Amino acid sequence: LMTCSAVSIEKETLISHRPHTFLRETDGLDDGSVRSRFQRMIMEVQDSVCGALEAVDGAGKFKEDAWTRPGGGGGISRVLQDGDVFEKAGVNISVVYGVMPPEAYRAAKANVTDQKSGPVPFFAAGISSVLHPKNPFAPTLHFNYRYFETDAPKDAPGAPRQWWFGGGTDLTPSYIFEEDVKHFHSHRDERRGLGGIFFDDLNDYDQEMLLSFATECANSVVPAYIPIVEKRKNTPFTESHKAWQQLRRGRYIEFNLVYDRGTTFGLKTGGRIESILVSLPLTARWEYDHKPEEGSEEWKLLDACMNPNEWI
Amino acid sequence: LMTCSAVSIEKETLISHRPHTFLRETDGLDDGSVRSRFQRMIMEVQDSVCGALEAVDGAGKFKEDAWTRPGGGGGISRVLQDGDVFEKAGVNISVVYGVMPPEAYRAAKANVTDQKSGPVPFFAAGISSVLHPKNPFAPTLHFNYRYFETDAPKDAPGAPRQWWFGGGTDLTPSYIFEEDVKHFHSHRDERRGLGGIFFDDLNDYDQEMLLSFATECANSVVPAYIPIVEKRKNTPFTESHKAWQQLRRGRYIEFNLVYDRGTTFGLKTGGRIESILVSLPLTARWEYDHKPEEGSEEWKLLDACMNPNEWI
Repeated sequence: LMTCSAVSIEKETLISHRPHTFLRETDGLDDGSVRSRFQRMIMEVQDSVCGALEAVDGAGKFKEDAWTRPGGGGGISRVLQDGDVFEKAGVNISVVYGVMPPEAYRAAKANVTDQKSGPVPFFAAGISSVLHPKNPFAPTLHFNYRYFETDAPKDAPGAPRQWWFGGGTDLTPSYIFEEDVKHFHSHRDERRGLGGIFFDDLNDYDQEMLLSFATECANSVVPAYIPIVEKRKNTPFTESHKAWQQLRRGRYIEFNLVYDRGTTFGLKTGGRIESILVSLPLTARWEYDHKPEEGSEEWKLLDACMNPNEWI
Repeated sequence: LMTCSAVSIEKETLISHRPHTFLRETDGLDDGSVRSRFQRMIMEVQDSVCGALEAVDGAGKFKEDAWTRPGGGGGISRVLQDGDVFEKAGVNISVVYGVMPPEAYRAAKANVTDQKSGPVPFFAAGISSVLHPKNPFAPTLHFNYRYFETDAPKDAPGAPRQWWFGGGTDLTPSYIFEEDVKHFHSHRDERRGLGGIFFDDLNDYDQEMLLSFATECANSVVPAYIPIVEKRKNTPFTESHKAWQQLRRGRYIEFNLVYDRGTTFGLKTGGRIESILVSLPLTARWEYDHKPEEGSEEWKLLDACMNPNEWI
């Protein structure tokens, strides 16, 4: 629906205890609002995902940082680093109140004819996570689910408030096990919307229905991913398997820092840097012009990245 | 002077032997042109820098890849990887013929009143290098020197051809040795323009004088940097020193992939990816919210990065 070219976000303050809500008082009182129900959902998903990850890791524990911003909003970052199973696992939630420049709003809404409308306040809440296991045969997982609202512009009476949902879950293996990818995608039939799925700007259905859809997608992360990690976390591997994983980590960073809209947007508009960069692996490697031998397992992965499969 | 929002660059073809010149025939015949003299200069600097690096390394050898583009232009990438002294050292030259959209040209030239001017062909040549030594006490070096020309627009008779020089050399240590930084900067007095220097859009002096200036800066890289590496390459270090270097490598990558104009511009407009990413270190590390102990050597480096010194 819309891309913001610039957004003002205030500087965050670390706080010692996480609050019950990051919503502004006027928002928070209405506990039945989509804002408040979406916030509760991402807090619950953060708890359940972190619990499941600590259980599968056995040793690593999440460290939590909470922060707020002066005008409302804030977030909770949780990071498990150098565990037995996970090299690095970050699970963040954030609630942002910002202001979108009028050009961005006009560009997005073809039917807005009032050229005098001012900056448009917006609200965004989301959960975002990247999980990097140590074992090269256990895949990296990324997911994020977000809800976005713009206020009705004050100087354009009658102009509608806008809202939309976005998000997705995707698997990034260093080696392909067809059965794992099938397990991951099989939820697509049983539980709508899981597995290599992305949606954005979703607002053309009933809002209740889309809130349920986003909730179901977020709740599917644990059953889709944890069994794969359980299965692969103790698979024996060689130094050469590990070196390949490190090269794939490097490629992941390239995509993340150069192309990922969420990462670059966050870094360039004043988001909390340490929370954003939690998505990076603990270690990575770059070799000039590395090419795996044709037909090898490493080559098969690259081939699958370049020539997408229908997995089920 | 100008920022290009989009540039068309053709796909490159690897070639088995490096050519004598990457200039188009019409350019190459005029051997006294600034284009051709700048190209010769960067080829010579590539040779002398790579020679000096192989000598100080003792074991590592540069691998060379050359490529051309269908409409003229091309480049030579040289990479030394996993040597005795250098983890990764890339020294690239490139010659690019491209086309700049008219908005970019108009934005750059305040006095151009003809709103009908079409796309503006440009020529750019440059040398670019990042050197990552293994020893955590030996600093990373980056330098690049470039020359840029736009053709006179065909449909705007009388509009002048534009040209400018840009470039710089900078040192990125993981630990500060004041004497090393002073040595590096001392060339600033003896040899104009070396050490933590950057210039861009330089065209307000005589073109001959600026070509000499760029040449002198490029020729100062070896005497400014090699003695520091010689001095530090065998300094004993602990695992903890190495871990800090790896974290600084991570920060280097963050700056390079997210903020560096050359890198992001190259990646997003069709530059040769493997040549651009040669600037990344072989290995790096990211820890969530890492903070060195106040007063430690690691803390002193961060402090100097945040509160710039006058070194001489």
